[in-house]
Amino acid sequence: MAKANEKKLVEAITPMDQDFAQWYTDVVKQARLIDYSPVRGCMSLLPNGYAIWEQIQHALDKMFKATGVQNVYMPLMIPESLLQKEKELVEGFAPEVAWVTVGGSEELTERLCVRPTSETLFSDLFSKTVQSYRDLPKLYNQWCSVVRWEKTTRPFLRTAEFLWQEGHTVHATAEESEERTIQMLNVYADFCEKYLAIPLIKGRKTDKEKFAGAEATYTIEAMMHDGKALQSGTSHNFGDKFARAYDIQFTDSNNQLAYAFQTSWGLSTRIIGAIIMVHGDDDGLVLPPRIAPVQVMIVPVAQHKPGVLEKAAEIEACLSGRYRVQVDASDKSPGWKFSEQEIQGIPLRVEIGPKDIEKGQAVVVRRDTREKYFVPLDELEKKIGEIIDAMHQDMFDRAKAHLDSHIYEAADYETFKDTIKNKPGFVKAMWCGDVACELKIKEDTTATSRCMPFGEAPIGDKCVCCGRPATRLVVWGKAY
Amino acid sequence: MAKANEKKLVEAITPMDQDFAQWYTDVVKQARLIDYSPVRGCMSLLPNGYAIWEQIQHALDKMFKATGVQNVYMPLMIPESLLQKEKELVEGFAPEVAWVTVGGSEELTERLCVRPTSETLFSDLFSKTVQSYRDLPKLYNQWCSVVRWEKTTRPFLRTAEFLWQEGHTVHATAEESEERTIQMLNVYADFCEKYLAIPLIKGRKTDKEKFAGAEATYTIEAMMHDGKALQSGTSHNFGDKFARAYDIQFTDSNNQLAYAFQTSWGLSTRIIGAIIMVHGDDDGLVLPPRIAPVQVMIVPVAQHKPGVLEKAAEIEACLSGRYRVQVDASDKSPGWKFSEQEIQGIPLRVEIGPKDIEKGQAVVVRRDTREKYFVPLDELEKKIGEIIDAMHQDMFDRAKAHLDSHIYEAADYETFKDTIKNKPGFVKAMWCGDVACELKIKEDTTATSRCMPFGEAPIGDKCVCCGRPATRLVVWGKAY
Repeated sequence: MAKANEKKLVEAITPMDQDFAQWYTDVVKQARLIDYSPVRGCMSLLPNGYAIWEQIQHALDKMFKATGVQNVYMPLMIPESLLQKEKELVEGFAPEVAWVTVGGSEELTERLCVRPTSETLFSDLFSKTVQSYRDLPKLYNQWCSVVRWEKTTRPFLRTAEFLWQEGHTVHATAEESEERTIQMLNVYADFCEKYLAIPLIKGRKTDKEKFAGAEATYTIEAMMHDGKALQSGTSHNFGDKFARAYDIQFTDSNNQLAYAFQTSWGLSTRIIGAIIMVHGDDDGLVLPPRIAPVQVMIVPVAQHKPGVLEKAAEIEACLSGRYRVQVDASDKSPGWKFSEQEIQGIPLRVEIGPKDIEKGQAVVVRRDTREKYFVPLDELEKKIGEIIDAMHQDMFDRAKAHLDSHIYEAADYETFKDTIKNKPGFVKAMWCGDVACELKIKEDTTATSRCMPFGEAPIGDKCVCCGRPATRLVVWGKAY
Repeated sequence: MAKANEKKLVEAITPMDQDFAQWYTDVVKQARLIDYSPVRGCMSLLPNGYAIWEQIQHALDKMFKATGVQNVYMPLMIPESLLQKEKELVEGFAPEVAWVTVGGSEELTERLCVRPTSETLFSDLFSKTVQSYRDLPKLYNQWCSVVRWEKTTRPFLRTAEFLWQEGHTVHATAEESEERTIQMLNVYADFCEKYLAIPLIKGRKTDKEKFAGAEATYTIEAMMHDGKALQSGTSHNFGDKFARAYDIQFTDSNNQLAYAFQTSWGLSTRIIGAIIMVHGDDDGLVLPPRIAPVQVMIVPVAQHKPGVLEKAAEIEACLSGRYRVQVDASDKSPGWKFSEQEIQGIPLRVEIGPKDIEKGQAVVVRRDTREKYFVPLDELEKKIGEIIDAMHQDMFDRAKAHLDSHIYEAADYETFKDTIKNKPGFVKAMWCGDVACELKIKEDTTATSRCMPFGEAPIGDKCVCCGRPATRLVVWGKAY
């Protein structure tokens, strides 16, 4: 009976090679990260899913604050007239906003959109609170949800509502706002590498792919198991464009009136999709140990025997000062518990049974490699830390090797199309700068320009698409 | 010049005795807690205001989790058909919900309300995820914003959108859900007393005042400086009412199909209004030290003199392990800094100047009493902790003395009306249980029944309003 159930538990996940999309959906559901909600295109984040977001918030919020950022909260609803002050932004977002038109029983005289992003409200706030260069910079951030009326949705990757943070800053000079834009991109990249074990390509978006209304958009792009790209965080420099639209003027140190410069930057629950698709395997989720809500699950073996549960509790008490740890003392069989925890991606399992107690040891099992360690109990606390560090590094290294080995180069269009078609991954190729080539490439291959990567030398001098002179190196790929 | 500015800073706050409502508005604005937003009835929470909420979240979330609660996130928008399954809830909330009717450029076939509260979505989730008694209890909570289309609004106290947490639990038995309802009310009360230094009256709401759809609503009521009540947190027991409306059935341990029992409980940014109106004074905000985002502000005196800023930084480094501490090294005058910090309610100021350095001491000043302490530098870390504890206790004691001395009793209706009219505060009086008396009292006096307090003996046997037999003791008062 228990055996049959265990089998059922694992069989619930479609193998990755068989159907990657179905594998993803199965993992999300079986790891109990979300539930589909009765609201079109929206999901309910269950405890296992939300706890990952809480860990992300906790780590990222600290990194933001270390750079001087302060948290605020701005209204959810934006009057249409305020939205319309910046033309490009409206055009970019209008097709996908939800409109509140009735309040209580009354038709509203002006409809309100549910925020798809909050540049407009922050700009309005800055226009009221920034008078002098002494008021600058202002470095604000908010944790909230946004709504974008997407037609086709997938858990974490594309939903009508999602959780994110949006940072909004205002500065006295163009140099400062550019510096902040890059600084926050680097914060995202550091966070992904140090906490999520996800390697990235950093670069600038082409004009076609940049944020509506931005002067420049920078991005971090991650590669999933299936070779597709996931845009994982973006940072925008607006120059003084919004300042001119929303009249954010201040008296500079020479007593001259000047327009201010702005940035915004965001990272969303989408990143949980990246965690799943970069690290997961056929048995389920594999959580990077530094972000896992439960880092260590203690499983008592033969827990009815005297002393076993007591020892498990003792180990929990010993570890809980340094790690996020739980004991699974439920009446399920150990095998069932193992499967459940593997599906949920808990990084380390500590097994403790009568024989282990006799030997004064515990068995530690890593989720990613299934490696077993027999650890003397008095070394457990220290050893767990070492295993976590090693596991993090190995997960990063594997993901980096996967990324590196799936980036190709193409000098001519036939090679380009052939590579995109037959080899999962990214293709580096030169681009003339004409949006027509981007559109043609998208039509021919469904690939899009992911970014113009930082610090990479050209690999040719002709556009891979049209053959005209080209100085820009672009990373292309199919994307989520 | 500096003197004139300092005066201006303080003069910006209307004295409490002169106009309490204006005092409140001035404090909220001058302490830079909020800014009025361009969205009708909504406010922008600025860093000083949001940081208080972050501290509240941090402390309360820990208390929730210690009782087994897990955080989740449910959609912002609720389909009208889902909302309408529980009739009382719809009737209670319909007049004050905002409706999304357009998504992108299309009219929706079913309109969606922006959540005013989420019983409906949680009930729907429970109906899908609760099958067996083994799935119970589920103890969920979410931190989010809700929208209620209020006509007249005041910062923190009543706004069209506000931040809160809403807990939703589901249980196998009526006893368990009643126990959880009271448990969470006690968590709120403990939190208010231990972190906010706010004493409370705990009790049960009358049917007229209870939550739409609840079997019983329990409340914590605080008394403001002006004697008015502020409902500061509520906990509801739904019995199996929502389970019947949303079909939440499970197989119990006897293999019988049974309806589940639910609770919900919420506390919002309203509580920041209570902090202001319980502790504030004519110079501004007074933050309870355990919840203050900045507990200690170090002000260097004669900071241009050698060694002063270095010593201030040294003190900051020494204190920052245990306290939330900052140095104000701006080029404002010390007097200006003092005024600003007083307006913002920072609990402790540490002054350090050349003379103090010579004596090896710092001057610590309490915001509430202005008491000065001359503390040897090597005792500072310990002494600050003692002052924080003393300040917290004194603030609580003063608020408790104010509460106790403004509760009156009335045995007859003339005394009742006269007390409500002439004495700010609460009135205890017996009530027959008839809603007609509640309505009459409200019409005659504008006072409402705040609660039927726990554990208090009757003070008579006749209804204060109609004279009929009465067994219920009710606390009455004017309320925000």
